Amino acid sequence: MCVLGLGLIGGSVLRAATNAGRPAFGYNRSIEGVQGAQADGFDASDDLDATLLRAAETGALIVVAVPMPALPTMLTHVAAAAPDNALTDVISVKSAVLDAVRDAGLLTRYVGGHPMTGTAHSGWAAGDAQLFVDTPWVVTVDDHVDPQAWTEVLGLALDCGSFVVPARSDEHDAAAAAISHLPHLAAEALAITASRVPLAFALAAGSFRDGTRVAATAPDLVRAMCEANSTELIPLLDQTIELLTAARRTLAEHDSVGELVEAGHAARVSYDSFTRPNIVGIAVGEQNWRDQLAAAGRAGWVIRSALPGPDSR
Amino acid sequence: MCVLGLGLIGGSVLRAATNAGRPAFGYNRSIEGVQGAQADGFDASDDLDATLLRAAETGALIVVAVPMPALPTMLTHVAAAAPDNALTDVISVKSAVLDAVRDAGLLTRYVGGHPMTGTAHSGWAAGDAQLFVDTPWVVTVDDHVDPQAWTEVLGLALDCGSFVVPARSDEHDAAAAAISHLPHLAAEALAITASRVPLAFALAAGSFRDGTRVAATAPDLVRAMCEANSTELIPLLDQTIELLTAARRTLAEHDSVGELVEAGHAARVSYDSFTRPNIVGIAVGEQNWRDQLAAAGRAGWVIRSALPGPDSR
Repeated sequence: MCVLGLGLIGGSVLRAATNAGRPAFGYNRSIEGVQGAQADGFDASDDLDATLLRAAETGALIVVAVPMPALPTMLTHVAAAAPDNALTDVISVKSAVLDAVRDAGLLTRYVGGHPMTGTAHSGWAAGDAQLFVDTPWVVTVDDHVDPQAWTEVLGLALDCGSFVVPARSDEHDAAAAAISHLPHLAAEALAITASRVPLAFALAAGSFRDGTRVAATAPDLVRAMCEANSTELIPLLDQTIELLTAARRTLAEHDSVGELVEAGHAARVSYDSFTRPNIVGIAVGEQNWRDQLAAAGRAGWVIRSALPGPDSR
Repeated sequence: MCVLGLGLIGGSVLRAATNAGRPAFGYNRSIEGVQGAQADGFDASDDLDATLLRAAETGALIVVAVPMPALPTMLTHVAAAAPDNALTDVISVKSAVLDAVRDAGLLTRYVGGHPMTGTAHSGWAAGDAQLFVDTPWVVTVDDHVDPQAWTEVLGLALDCGSFVVPARSDEHDAAAAAISHLPHLAAEALAITASRVPLAFALAAGSFRDGTRVAATAPDLVRAMCEANSTELIPLLDQTIELLTAARRTLAEHDSVGELVEAGHAARVSYDSFTRPNIVGIAVGEQNWRDQLAAAGRAGWVIRSALPGPDSR
């Protein structure tokens, strides 16, 4: 396996895959990241051409773990040096990546991926082989997806300790907007509002700390994921603004926030009781396998161990 | 010390004060709470008249720990049975409590209090003697406040393990709106928005879990604190809505959320670097002591051990 980009996520993938016994090597643009990885005993290089040549020769699964803005250039290199390798990524939006992969002519063996985990820190040093343990890792099931490449990416996610949620790229992006991008913007707005109130930071406790935790994330990362997903994010941002505006109105006119609070509590309780049964009985490559997996993922089902292929039936 | 109401906060005060060696007894309306407290070895009764008589006879500091809607009736009982006792409360808004105390004719020996801590649970069983350890406990320094009563309430908060933030009631309420009530409403809106998106709960991870944690709080509690503080909450809610609306506009028109994200990150970083130096050198009761303490609290200073009285200078 070949990881391109050894930041928080890519560096953690290299660690976790190596620990799981996979042959794994990585590339990073900055020499500091490479030296950090090497000092920790991992196989890393700052020579992109040599790394991609090695990937092509060994048929390694390529994992693109660079930030969204660096993606098109990286895909150009992959298309030139290793166009036939199975290809995945760990970027937090999926439709925009799918478009870039299509533009680079790499669609055939591409399967999108998104480990739904992270910390407020970045860079090789922030990585952790345990980062993925018992967290969701989305593996996309868009119409073009090849069963063999899909099985390879599934195997990587499972080896890293994740459970896999199969999803279409566009559905992933709407969900990611709801549960990640929108909460980031809300956290920024809450932090700004509080910073203007004398005494606020002096009194801040749990609800402020939790509600603004992700505002500590590097601004470039927050911008990259929100701005690359604006199509899905804007309508949800509108809904949130409308909910708050309605609560403002009932609070001013009827001294009540009852409607918002009751509905919010019910929503959160239904999230707390959300279970994740295991997907079984769908064979990768059988008729309608992509639609079956997408429907199961949508209903909350996940993959915790390798699925059968169509030939194993 | 006499605690009226043995829910999460009142029950925790009774535990912490008793553990600190204070003579402490409590009243609770429901027999279940009383039996729970007695079974855990605490001095509790469901007889309000007897409890208040005992408080009056022993000169006990009275701590009102009932929900805001039950406050006026409780204060009527206190005014009838124990009007001369030092009086405080642990309710999460302060101006509304101050008004109710004034209406009940109990202002002279009243000092407002608010331990800035809690959990998503409620009732005696949810209480914890350690709940206050190293958390802020606001003790109000409004113009009427009596030095001796203030010193008694300070001592209780310190005995429970809190550090004390001195603040005026109106400034407390603005800060509480910013760091607690507003984050609660944002959490409700985020939970509702996500609940409408297929796949969202299936992918929810840290940023959603943290950003909506307080939406699990009992709706009645959230309503009580937000609705009792609407004067301070509405303008801050307007600011947050305006920040999100501006971000929505720049995202749609310029594909950017840069302004919100940079300012939000800066605000959160300034919160993370917020320190809490110890207040020393202000003697309770000396000239302008209330204004001095309010200014120190506003600047982030806190009280971690007993302050001198004016006679100890």
